[in-house]
Amino acid sequence: MEKHIHGGDVYHHQGCIDFSANCNPLGTPEGIKKAIIESLEHINDYPQVGCTPLKKAIAEYENTKPDQVICGNGAAEVIFSLCRAVNPRRALVPAPTFAEYQQALYSVDCQVEFFPLNGKKGFVLEEDFLQALTKEIDIIFLCNPNNPTGLLVEKPLLEKILKRCQELDILMAVDECFLDFVPSPEKYTLKEYLETYDNLFLLKAFTKRYAMAGVRLGYGLCGNKGLLEKIEGVCQPWNVSSMAQAAGLAALQETEYVEKGRQVTFEELAYLKEQLTALGYPVYPSQANYVFFTGPLDLYEKLEQKKILIRDCSNYTGLSKGYYRVAVKEHEENQQLVRALKEIERNRKK
Amino acid sequence: MEKHIHGGDVYHHQGCIDFSANCNPLGTPEGIKKAIIESLEHINDYPQVGCTPLKKAIAEYENTKPDQVICGNGAAEVIFSLCRAVNPRRALVPAPTFAEYQQALYSVDCQVEFFPLNGKKGFVLEEDFLQALTKEIDIIFLCNPNNPTGLLVEKPLLEKILKRCQELDILMAVDECFLDFVPSPEKYTLKEYLETYDNLFLLKAFTKRYAMAGVRLGYGLCGNKGLLEKIEGVCQPWNVSSMAQAAGLAALQETEYVEKGRQVTFEELAYLKEQLTALGYPVYPSQANYVFFTGPLDLYEKLEQKKILIRDCSNYTGLSKGYYRVAVKEHEENQQLVRALKEIERNRKK
Repeated sequence: MEKHIHGGDVYHHQGCIDFSANCNPLGTPEGIKKAIIESLEHINDYPQVGCTPLKKAIAEYENTKPDQVICGNGAAEVIFSLCRAVNPRRALVPAPTFAEYQQALYSVDCQVEFFPLNGKKGFVLEEDFLQALTKEIDIIFLCNPNNPTGLLVEKPLLEKILKRCQELDILMAVDECFLDFVPSPEKYTLKEYLETYDNLFLLKAFTKRYAMAGVRLGYGLCGNKGLLEKIEGVCQPWNVSSMAQAAGLAALQETEYVEKGRQVTFEELAYLKEQLTALGYPVYPSQANYVFFTGPLDLYEKLEQKKILIRDCSNYTGLSKGYYRVAVKEHEENQQLVRALKEIERNRKK
Repeated sequence: MEKHIHGGDVYHHQGCIDFSANCNPLGTPEGIKKAIIESLEHINDYPQVGCTPLKKAIAEYENTKPDQVICGNGAAEVIFSLCRAVNPRRALVPAPTFAEYQQALYSVDCQVEFFPLNGKKGFVLEEDFLQALTKEIDIIFLCNPNNPTGLLVEKPLLEKILKRCQELDILMAVDECFLDFVPSPEKYTLKEYLETYDNLFLLKAFTKRYAMAGVRLGYGLCGNKGLLEKIEGVCQPWNVSSMAQAAGLAALQETEYVEKGRQVTFEELAYLKEQLTALGYPVYPSQANYVFFTGPLDLYEKLEQKKILIRDCSNYTGLSKGYYRVAVKEHEENQQLVRALKEIERNRKK
């Protein structure tokens, strides 16, 4: 199986400004770094099995119960472990969306059916998705807001999907990793259904909310204790490092930082959308901390020459050359991107 | 599936001296901590997918090729990923041995056949193991030196097993994690067969050699590129954190520390064996950085009262109450253990 190539590969693009990974524009809070440094005093000890204090803190933050939380070595590990625990034979996944769902499904030899989101209709998930749910399907993955489009699925539709999945005994995994950057997350999250829907699994990450992708820390929320136990059964006992557990506990204290990061995101998302539109690029109405747009086929390379790294989305199932995603960063960096794009377009006209 | 309870749970034994996990007695080198702290500067970036620089450094250290190395979130992750990639239907595992082999095998619904090591013969793996190898078996796990006994498997027997496994199309996984603490590792390692035996997989860890269990970093060595690709296919792309990659690169520079740790281990292993024997406990001839012995049934609890944590080995398949394992630590700590044991035995006679 070919590994999917993702954004965020700064190692082969040294010295580039990285717009290809979507983290909090403010960078990693100092409090998290400090907690990691403090954790080094006991780094000779094994990490705490079961992440009990961290689960408790996440439950408080999310307003759920500690036994509804499962922690992983990044949300990506949770996705892979979920697939191993469920061992689905058939899955339904919209296209385009985050590639690790299909990668994890393929890794357990699951047949993946793609539900094509219509580019002409702006890649929005609509009611016809309900008809694609059949009792042959064991699991679906939805990303809300979707990656790479930044588009939200409306809650009434999500609720209909959840109910239909329950009737058909389908596990519904909803990736809410980027919901933290949406103006009103509470209008879109399915958290309130964790208690009553055994077939609901939510994915969250520290990576994006706190800009700590290198640490590896993500989690799942689920009311189905049997499923959570199964997931723990397919993992080693020490999957979350001591540093990640310490970082997570410190991160959850960073409420001011998170709010500030959200405000910067709202302002800069508007700025980038406006500027990209002014440049003549068709821009999709993302509500996440990244902008999805179409542009000239050589844009990735042209920007790379200017030491700017963006996400060429052509390797997403359902997309092709010419689709791009850029992260929302701080104003100065966003200005650099816009200046580079203006220069590229100016040179084109010469 | 019940999770196996391991040693090293310092979180439920605050303030105890921990003899229940087997790491380098010298503790984590400062150079590793420094490297982790330096890595925090870029902790907002995703870790490097594929761990290219680390694989190269490991290959140099092990005198193998970079494309024969696979890195994991601790050796435990490598064990689980190996089982997922191979998806064995039937496995043969000696008993007692490290519990994560069977846990990982059970997690892929593999039938595990235990090869009982005879306690009366000192739990040594002998030639009769060869007869237990049949073509129904897909994979075997051997730990050399074995955990918890510290006993080595002689190389001529290992070579016979390897050949027999090749003939029968059995994957032979040998865990050499504790070989770093044996006086002459080169006499026991199977590394020289990586090139010629496609059915050989070796496990190694940074955890023990550098006392960095909280970081999570282990690796596998294998000459079978198809198998390594399969293993990478069942893992998320970012399974090794940026901090772990930096720690690993720094650790491989710590040659003096490793040698010093080995010398301390040799001396203190002899000291502990002598003292435990003098106390009347039957001691097995461990050659690793831990001592395996039998003692009174209440020894774990008695020592726990004295704030000393040892490994009660009764939950190992093939063992029962009264078997214990203690790590070799620095002289002062070992003295504390011996003093505590003497006191316990003195009080018993009153």
